[in-house]
Amino acid sequence: MDQAEHLLHAAQDEVAAGIDALFDRLLAVPADPRARLYEAMRHAAIAGGKRLRPLLVRAAGDLFHVDRTIGLRVGAAVEAMHVYSLIHDDLPCMDDDDMRRGKPTVHRAYDESTAVLAGDSLHALAFEWLCDPATHGDPFVRAELCCELARAAGPTGMAGGQMMDLVAETADFDLPTVTRLQQLKTGALIGFSVEAGAILARIPAEGRRPLRGYARDIGLAFQIADDILDVEGDEALAGKALHKDDAAGKATFVTLMGLDRAREQARLLVDQAIAHLAGFGDEAALLRAIARYVVERDH
Amino acid sequence: MDQAEHLLHAAQDEVAAGIDALFDRLLAVPADPRARLYEAMRHAAIAGGKRLRPLLVRAAGDLFHVDRTIGLRVGAAVEAMHVYSLIHDDLPCMDDDDMRRGKPTVHRAYDESTAVLAGDSLHALAFEWLCDPATHGDPFVRAELCCELARAAGPTGMAGGQMMDLVAETADFDLPTVTRLQQLKTGALIGFSVEAGAILARIPAEGRRPLRGYARDIGLAFQIADDILDVEGDEALAGKALHKDDAAGKATFVTLMGLDRAREQARLLVDQAIAHLAGFGDEAALLRAIARYVVERDH
Repeated sequence: MDQAEHLLHAAQDEVAAGIDALFDRLLAVPADPRARLYEAMRHAAIAGGKRLRPLLVRAAGDLFHVDRTIGLRVGAAVEAMHVYSLIHDDLPCMDDDDMRRGKPTVHRAYDESTAVLAGDSLHALAFEWLCDPATHGDPFVRAELCCELARAAGPTGMAGGQMMDLVAETADFDLPTVTRLQQLKTGALIGFSVEAGAILARIPAEGRRPLRGYARDIGLAFQIADDILDVEGDEALAGKALHKDDAAGKATFVTLMGLDRAREQARLLVDQAIAHLAGFGDEAALLRAIARYVVERDH
Repeated sequence: MDQAEHLLHAAQDEVAAGIDALFDRLLAVPADPRARLYEAMRHAAIAGGKRLRPLLVRAAGDLFHVDRTIGLRVGAAVEAMHVYSLIHDDLPCMDDDDMRRGKPTVHRAYDESTAVLAGDSLHALAFEWLCDPATHGDPFVRAELCCELARAAGPTGMAGGQMMDLVAETADFDLPTVTRLQQLKTGALIGFSVEAGAILARIPAEGRRPLRGYARDIGLAFQIADDILDVEGDEALAGKALHKDDAAGKATFVTLMGLDRAREQARLLVDQAIAHLAGFGDEAALLRAIARYVVERDH
């Protein structure tokens, strides 16, 4: 293992443990009829996933010496938003998936109505945790975080991308449209995660430009890698069903570019993402390692 | 029509027109594959409902001379949150309703997946609109509004109440549990609406106590009236299916107290709500008129 990989794994382990501990505390099961709702949220949120988004908050925060406990709280909020989107995305009326992160999906382990409400609850909690004065003492920072997260989650971000994804099942999307779809569906929340690190350090929008460029490039590279894994990946490692895009006849980066060009394009985007960080020194080593990881991962 | 009724109807008409105009502008349909998502949101959000929550923001804001344009923006955010909850509540896996506000529900007019995403989108937009610097110049106010709205919407508020409502289908809830259920399911968002008027005027939490008492009482009175209307109301006026609680064998204020005691209790709560406003003069006339309206309405 080289130094960058070591740095990545150490941070990933620390962030994953921190997120699990936070979720465990923030999602304590109440002794009333809402217990089932909290259990469903815990089922989906605890001990699962790569925790890429909280890792990005931490890595970007490290650039500006942001307190890591604060970064972790913001990471928990982004991860809650991500988990909510997975729960709703897995619903029978959406992708109708049975497995997620190696476990039954929420509507399979519980039921459909509990899954809808568990997603809705995590969606609201993401904002509640961000806005909490415990997250940051400066109300300007809290308000800006909420505003950016709302944009990343709503119809101009994740939800808009999911709508495009539904339309993609019956429409013939070209490469620019698939790129736009993915920028909304996964790019927006990845972008928020990276930018949040800088918002926490009160870096104005202008100064966050290189980070936005980095996030845009790794977001797209991440999705291209996902499309490649959907074709070539191992279902056991992925913990979910694969080969679904192909079965649905959906245009993806792989169907539009072919495997070789898709792989080449992902590598190019990673180089470009790292180039955006040229103004930073060693403090950006984790962000660089993450950029390489998003295309080299096996699940 | 007496003076209070006149005041109520004039404010209600003005607020309803203002909310429709705002939704029309904020939910402009984009010329891309997300068009269907926006059309579904417009179907659910525009020209429908009593707009009780935006009316409460306006009435509470009037106490402190809050700019009515600002109050209307916050009202649109609360109404978006309310409409999202109706869309998800109507889903086949939830209440499976075909009609809402006299129109087909979103999953009937569009489809189930679009309904899930339209609800999710309005949920995020509520926060986006609240956090927008155009809503209020003071970031402390924006952050506090977001925090309170998140609490009112999540598992300690509306979503938690909806979970209890699901459990109510198979459990025998007593009066305190049904009261708690309704305080979460509808009371929390009504409470936010009233408190928002004071938050916009930077009234500290301590000074908002009478408004919280008022909101708690009218919230409960509103729900008792709803339970009575479910038994005695006119489906055409309601614009939705009635007699559903009874068919589901669900405990309601009416099944637990009987019609007469429920009616008496609602009237008592209205008197109590109005008593909380004793410290205010004529500027609280609209809040008082709303309190009477919530139990006297025919739909």
